[in-house]
Amino acid sequence: MEISVDINCDMGESFGAYKIGRDEEIIRYISSSNISCGFHASDPNVMETTVRLCKDHSVSAGAHPGYPDLLGFGRRFIDMDQKELINAILYQVGALHGFLAIYQIPLQHVKMHGALYNHLVKEESLFLEIIKIVKSAFGDLIFLTLFTDRTAALKKALKKEGFRIALEAFPDRNYDDNGELLSRKYKEAVLKDPDLIAKRAVRMVKERGIESVSGHWLDIEADTLCVHGDNLESIEAARRIKTYFEQENIYIKPLVALL
Amino acid sequence: MEISVDINCDMGESFGAYKIGRDEEIIRYISSSNISCGFHASDPNVMETTVRLCKDHSVSAGAHPGYPDLLGFGRRFIDMDQKELINAILYQVGALHGFLAIYQIPLQHVKMHGALYNHLVKEESLFLEIIKIVKSAFGDLIFLTLFTDRTAALKKALKKEGFRIALEAFPDRNYDDNGELLSRKYKEAVLKDPDLIAKRAVRMVKERGIESVSGHWLDIEADTLCVHGDNLESIEAARRIKTYFEQENIYIKPLVALL
Amino acid sequence: MEISVDINCDMGESFGAYKIGRDEEIIRYISSSNISCGFHASDPNVMETTVRLCKDHSVSAGAHPGYPDLLGFGRRFIDMDQKELINAILYQVGALHGFLAIYQIPLQHVKMHGALYNHLVKEESLFLEIIKIVKSAFGDLIFLTLFTDRTAALKKALKKEGFRIALEAFPDRNYDDNGELLSRKYKEAVLKDPDLIAKRAVRMVKERGIESVSGHWLDIEADTLCVHGDNLESIEAARRIKTYFEQENIYIKPLVALL
Amino acid sequence: MEISVDINCDMGESFGAYKIGRDEEIIRYISSSNISCGFHASDPNVMETTVRLCKDHSVSAGAHPGYPDLLGFGRRFIDMDQKELINAILYQVGALHGFLAIYQIPLQHVKMHGALYNHLVKEESLFLEIIKIVKSAFGDLIFLTLFTDRTAALKKALKKEGFRIALEAFPDRNYDDNGELLSRKYKEAVLKDPDLIAKRAVRMVKERGIESVSGHWLDIEADTLCVHGDNLESIEAARRIKTYFEQENIYIKPLVALL
Repeated sequence: MEISVDINCDMGESFGAYKIGRDEEIIRYISSSNISCGFHASDPNVMETTVRLCKDHSVSAGAHPGYPDLLGFGRRFIDMDQKELINAILYQVGALHGFLAIYQIPLQHVKMHGALYNHLVKEESLFLEIIKIVKSAFGDLIFLTLFTDRTAALKKALKKEGFRIALEAFPDRNYDDNGELLSRKYKEAVLKDPDLIAKRAVRMVKERGIESVSGHWLDIEADTLCVHGDNLESIEAARRIKTYFEQENIYIKPLVALL
Repeated sequence: MEISVDINCDMGESFGAYKIGRDEEIIRYISSSNISCGFHASDPNVMETTVRLCKDHSVSAGAHPGYPDLLGFGRRFIDMDQKELINAILYQVGALHGFLAIYQIPLQHVKMHGALYNHLVKEESLFLEIIKIVKSAFGDLIFLTLFTDRTAALKKALKKEGFRIALEAFPDRNYDDNGELLSRKYKEAVLKDPDLIAKRAVRMVKERGIESVSGHWLDIEADTLCVHGDNLESIEAARRIKTYFEQENIYIKPLVALL
Repeated sequence: MEISVDINCDMGESFGAYKIGRDEEIIRYISSSNISCGFHASDPNVMETTVRLCKDHSVSAGAHPGYPDLLGFGRRFIDMDQKELINAILYQVGALHGFLAIYQIPLQHVKMHGALYNHLVKEESLFLEIIKIVKSAFGDLIFLTLFTDRTAALKKALKKEGFRIALEAFPDRNYDDNGELLSRKYKEAVLKDPDLIAKRAVRMVKERGIESVSGHWLDIEADTLCVHGDNLESIEAARRIKTYFEQENIYIKPLVALL
Repeated sequence: MEISVDINCDMGESFGAYKIGRDEEIIRYISSSNISCGFHASDPNVMETTVRLCKDHSVSAGAHPGYPDLLGFGRRFIDMDQKELINAILYQVGALHGFLAIYQIPLQHVKMHGALYNHLVKEESLFLEIIKIVKSAFGDLIFLTLFTDRTAALKKALKKEGFRIALEAFPDRNYDDNGELLSRKYKEAVLKDPDLIAKRAVRMVKERGIESVSGHWLDIEADTLCVHGDNLESIEAARRIKTYFEQENIYIKPLVALL
């Protein structure tokens, strides 16, 4: 039996003279790129460069909107009302369109960033409002969200209505017993060992689950695994994931080929 | 003989709690709206509101990009290089797309704002680069620029290559003897009297020209006249232009119907 | 017996081309000015103008820091950690210093803005941290906060440690039965009638309290009353407060003369 | 005879999650730190950290204002009028005060950044206006500017009026025959070889001059040499300057000890 999974990474997080991320390296190991849109990170030049990089490497492109908070890198919750949050997202996804157009790349997906991502995992009705209006504006996109039992049920329910949800897992993050990402307050929250991360990625896909930080088994049905391009270790983890996936006959395919 | 002309106005210049412009009034007297895109003015909520206003009043929508300078309202020259300027414009025009899409309005035109508008009137080759790349990204748009002898020649030359340039005149601005807008340094630069402005609008269209500030005749072939929605006087000027145009059988039509 | 009270108003909330507030009118009716510092409102030019206005009218000057959120006008909660919040406040209060210095005005007080003001009313230990570090940086300032039973107790406790807290009441706001400002979600939250507002101001000072929205009596020991300069009605309310106070022999004095 | 010179470096240029500069290394080799103030780089947290670093290493602190242009890192000219430029500088220098106060460090000097620095080298009367008003606001500071024949004459003239100008030279930059910094358009503009840079620093101080890029001798009377903390090579250059200066009995002293 063939197993396929998407691998996604946040990209284009530099800003002006400020560089974040080894985009030219990580792009070799992923199938979907979440492109920051200028609110929590990125600028028009970085967006253009990032879209070109996706084009050159045949990596699928997604919009990666966040809170309007460059100083906080989108990691701080901002108490925006529904209307202004929706408009902020429409603005950011739209802003990516010109760059996609000049490189003739379709928009595959939308993945929220940081505190907005976490907020929407908890606020299901708000998430629904957003995906409805984004779809009505930009057509049939795929929306990424964290795999949990609730989002898995949501995915199934929305499929009937014609929405595509992609469920995401994090090989480099520990999970608590409820299947939620262990808070970054704990030092075990983020794993660094490339080999461990890569092995967890294999297990997440082949065994459809992983142990929580306390050793409890968690079922996970991930359409996509999130990797990071911040530093050499995370690049090495992504490289090994690719290598191990080849050995295990796990195919890395963009979301559009899976959903 | 039927005479038709477009009337355009900068709109959507409010920002958060800050209000500029009597958009709900001026929209009644214009055929094309230049919608600010969040760099020199506006925000996602204002953009959404402005696009909806265009929809409700069947006014054609254009993007109105400017320098990234909210504090200076886009009126200060910023020495950006060509690549970053083009990307800043692609970003802004793109950012308008989601709002146009949810209200199912096409993008009719692009008009630059403030210091960027003035810069591009002087920098013809840069202007050309911009309209080429914007067209390649967003399709067959109309580009507004100030009517001068040079831009009139440019319009003609570009028409053969498939580009549409709309030439603009300002009934509420005095011109110098070279046909350029009199600098705002001079107190006569901006006219305030609504009736005078409206009569100048009629003459600009019917007589295809106007006297300069020193009484010298200037030929003007305007596709569109710019009005302003900042204050009661400018609203009244626009209202009279519409009234006088009706009396003179001058039709107000959006650019897309003229070019 | 002589009764004295301070009257304060948020000022300097314009930004670039964007105007908010009728500062030149409201300044005539107040004794203390809360000057925005460029994060939620204002810019360096507005700050200079506002300090000059205080100088011209012999009104005491205070810093008015807020969340870094111009788009939200500081009215949206941002989940900043303690360290970054303190630094954001130190930055803003400092930024006012050059303007105070060129007009030779001392810094009298600090009042937080909007969502930050509301947050600190609830977060007493964070408020304490802030006033300690601001005092260590800028010397013996007065800190404004909403009058509640808790803040009244805090004021007394801090006085022994050498801190000066000024308690504030809002004549143009309805209070709930707990003595908290009625949420702006309710339409009765903000009063508009200038005469009613002025009469409530008199009662707040002379009777040391006011009825809640449901008619329950609330004791209030206010050092300062907050008025608003947003519109003609609020200006008229402030004018009447001044007139009625003269009739009632209530003296309007800056905080520095009271605490 | 004892020779003393200041060594200065731009510091605190990080912003939120974005890191620029190896401040903790370069601080060991300098006597004066130019601290960015949040307009072209830095944020309140970075400013606090940078001031603390100066305190820990007994390095003198200066304000480093720039154009309000984080995206352009202050390297793009913005056509601000005199009043708004002065206010922007007063704001930035003021913003540093709270951080200096909590660490009990005096403000030694002001050095402009990037495009603003270059603009003021050419605009002498504007520079004069700025140093007058900054002094009236913040007291007797030292103002850094590029050494040229004109600024050397200006320094002498201003000394009589009670102003202190520090003249600056760049060991890692090539000069043209007019004694101006070779434009960064040329690849020889910036030197990278640490040893060459260090030897040029020694010559600049001991021989009071250096050869231009074409071999022409230029007299230079530098009070301070500018080094950079961007990368390992520039750190190594600064380290060698310190070593060679010790060997040559050149003392590194902060500006306040020299002027």
